[in-house]
Amino acid sequence: MPTPTSEPLTALELDRFVFHSWSAQGRLAPLTIAGGEGCEVWDDTGRRYLDFSSQLVNVNIGHQHPAVVAGIVEQAGTLTTIAPGHANLARGRAARAITSLAPDGMSQVFFTNGGADANENAMRLARLHTGRPKVISAYRSYHGNTGAAIAATGDWRRIPNEHATGHVHVFTPYLLRSDFWASTPEEECERALGHLARVIECEGPASIAAILLETVPGTAGVLIPPPGYLAGVRALADEHGILLILDEVMCGFGRTGRWFAFADHLEPGTRPDLITFAKGVNSGYVPAGGVIIGDDVAATFDERVFPGGLTYSGHPLAMAAIVATLEAMASDDVVGHARRIGDDVLGPGLRSLAARHPVVGEVRGVGVFWALELVAGRGDVAPLGPTDMAFVKAECLRRGLLPFVQDNRIHVVPPCVVTAAEVHCALSIYDDVLTALEENR
Amino acid sequence: MPTPTSEPLTALELDRFVFHSWSAQGRLAPLTIAGGEGCEVWDDTGRRYLDFSSQLVNVNIGHQHPAVVAGIVEQAGTLTTIAPGHANLARGRAARAITSLAPDGMSQVFFTNGGADANENAMRLARLHTGRPKVISAYRSYHGNTGAAIAATGDWRRIPNEHATGHVHVFTPYLLRSDFWASTPEEECERALGHLARVIECEGPASIAAILLETVPGTAGVLIPPPGYLAGVRALADEHGILLILDEVMCGFGRTGRWFAFADHLEPGTRPDLITFAKGVNSGYVPAGGVIIGDDVAATFDERVFPGGLTYSGHPLAMAAIVATLEAMASDDVVGHARRIGDDVLGPGLRSLAARHPVVGEVRGVGVFWALELVAGRGDVAPLGPTDMAFVKAECLRRGLLPFVQDNRIHVVPPCVVTAAEVHCALSIYDDVLTALEENR
Ligand SMILES: Cc1ncc(COP(=O)(O)O)c(C=O)c1O
Ligand SMILES: Cc1ncc(COP(=O)(O)O)c(C=O)c1O
Repeated sequence: MPTPTSEPLTALELDRFVFHSWSAQGRLAPLTIAGGEGCEVWDDTGRRYLDFSSQLVNVNIGHQHPAVVAGIVEQAGTLTTIAPGHANLARGRAARAITSLAPDGMSQVFFTNGGADANENAMRLARLHTGRPKVISAYRSYHGNTGAAIAATGDWRRIPNEHATGHVHVFTPYLLRSDFWASTPEEECERALGHLARVIECEGPASIAAILLETVPGTAGVLIPPPGYLAGVRALADEHGILLILDEVMCGFGRTGRWFAFADHLEPGTRPDLITFAKGVNSGYVPAGGVIIGDDVAATFDERVFPGGLTYSGHPLAMAAIVATLEAMASDDVVGHARRIGDDVLGPGLRSLAARHPVVGEVRGVGVFWALELVAGRGDVAPLGPTDMAFVKAECLRRGLLPFVQDNRIHVVPPCVVTAAEVHCALSIYDDVLTALEENR
Repeated sequence: MPTPTSEPLTALELDRFVFHSWSAQGRLAPLTIAGGEGCEVWDDTGRRYLDFSSQLVNVNIGHQHPAVVAGIVEQAGTLTTIAPGHANLARGRAARAITSLAPDGMSQVFFTNGGADANENAMRLARLHTGRPKVISAYRSYHGNTGAAIAATGDWRRIPNEHATGHVHVFTPYLLRSDFWASTPEEECERALGHLARVIECEGPASIAAILLETVPGTAGVLIPPPGYLAGVRALADEHGILLILDEVMCGFGRTGRWFAFADHLEPGTRPDLITFAKGVNSGYVPAGGVIIGDDVAATFDERVFPGGLTYSGHPLAMAAIVATLEAMASDDVVGHARRIGDDVLGPGLRSLAARHPVVGEVRGVGVFWALELVAGRGDVAPLGPTDMAFVKAECLRRGLLPFVQDNRIHVVPPCVVTAAEVHCALSIYDDVLTALEENR
């Protein structure tokens, strides 16, 4: 018989009622998280951790930012829920705040609950606008767990979930493990564009609705594109009447030290046709995501019904959190801070770790979006395996740092508000952990 | 240039930045909703409406229930967001509260952001558990807007969105417009089961992972299944090792005057393999949904990785809203109230409307889940068209009632906490509107 809801069990005991994402359920050893503030979280014994994961790289503004909590509390007292068809002040304000950050010519937002459904709706918009069935995306990508989003995803998570049609995958730049036998960033860029052009040609340009790319592939390893790559993709898309969808779910809203990561990559005056976002837009304080829509695409649905929607599109609580987050980020210059801390403290610190630890094969990143790639040693880029990475994770936790460990990498992804002192503290923990790892192997 | 976020515009003016669900954007005339309480909402001029839509049939506990708002506010002050991998008290409590309402043998919950992703993950669980590719669902159904959920959906919204494989649709019972040339509920039930058995046979039972049905198809018209239908489906599924997924997103958590609508339809001791939910579980105060998983299905993923997940799975704010909602619903007997108000006041009232108005072709429902089907007249069930239905909607609004109008039907779906006085008030508005409609035609 089920336990009555009044019996006092701990979070860990109650966790047996929860079926977990992306896991074998018999092998879980979750950490309890009871509270947080800024760049710290704590467990139910009061033990504190420096959160260098930003949870799932979403808490850009830090935990429990008072202005965002206040915005949620105020809206909760006014009106928590409303159907998408109605007009509502919080929703309109959120949409205006987002579009005011977007390039000219993108003046509407379709709201969703998260990143996956943002990508679903972006692909839907592109397919209906162009009348074409296919979407090209990258093998090194993650776009979410629902039907079309998981089929657009390139990583292993796609494979047990492929029940969608019209998805084609390409290789994208990653010089360390080049799929193009390239040896310089220029060569990697040129060949990646050549490969994309060939796939477009072979698939038939007139069958391709969109190219969907993470501006900076995140889960795949914080793979900053080489200069010119995204501008080249934009040009190829234009040549063939293909829409460019940039997935800024992880890299947008401050992570790279820009409101949108593509600001570093597209020529001024050019823009994506559709931008998908979630996470940083309100730091995940209330589930929200969406698509910023180019005016030409939006115009397709002036007289024609857009066949997509969801119960919580433009949810007032989520919207209030967006408005409060974007206002606080703007007034505290959180985005500029993220850039500077990356340029001045985090980037140099990680590079110096790499110089001292042969196990660090590459450091990549910008802003508060970095990856340390752990490899066999100098000149041998064979990735470290699960046992070593489990050791890294456990040692970070033991030293009071909540890390983001993915494959053979440590993603160094603190909140955008991280201070220089917190960065130094984290760097010294990583340093100790890498030393312990090298001794342990 | 985008407008600065500080300029004071009205909700309606700001609405131009919002791209709306399921609509042609050039033809919107949204109502502004600024606040709500219980069964009422109001616009920004203070004009009040009786909410007989429950927004999108989700506000089961009524607007701004103080205990739920307090639960959200309290959690907002503690911890708003956390990654799915960690253990957290709010999450464990919500999972326990839900499973304690579910049948024996269903002791875990996988959380999502809404109904679509609940169905996505239920289909994923079923396909991986059985190793079979196909899912059978009903033409008269709506399961959500993402890749697999929209492909499983049967209504027109599926057609521009069909990019998923492995979906097969069947006809289900609807005696008024029988797809089986039936003339009694018994005949409709028997023939619908015969049709399903034939489709299973023709598709190949060994290729079918699941049958996915709304226990009571909602958007399709509040189509209460005839006695024996769902028990018959359960038996057919068992015969062929097919899982039964019941979508209780709209009909669950009180709507029919039961915690789960299937309580009226399955034999004691039998249960679905997977139950999907959203909406009523926390009345949509914070976006949430999920899958309640049968233990045998969950066991498949003890040692094998479940390849599904989302950033906001088990979001603490959503979880706190679930715990507060379910506790308040239980302590106020909201579910029993919904049943009684349906049996004693709403049902009889609607039937008496039908007796007086030839334009009402059928009244169907239970609890606070009803439909009035508007037709040409006695003995002629031709559905009323869009012009008449737009008139109905406008006349309801003019009289201070927010209706739920779908195709040729008025769905009468107030919050579960609706009082007898509110029902009488609504009945008299419907009465006047139907009179005006009959005079206007
Ligand atoms: C780039 C990117 N797109 C989409 C998603 C999916 O977002 P969600 O988990 O909110 O569905 C993620 C999640 O990590 C992501 O990193
Ligand atoms: C029965 C049913 N299933 C699924 C959904 C989809 O839920 P959501 O809009 O939260 O994705 C709905 C929404 O109306 C529904 O009524």
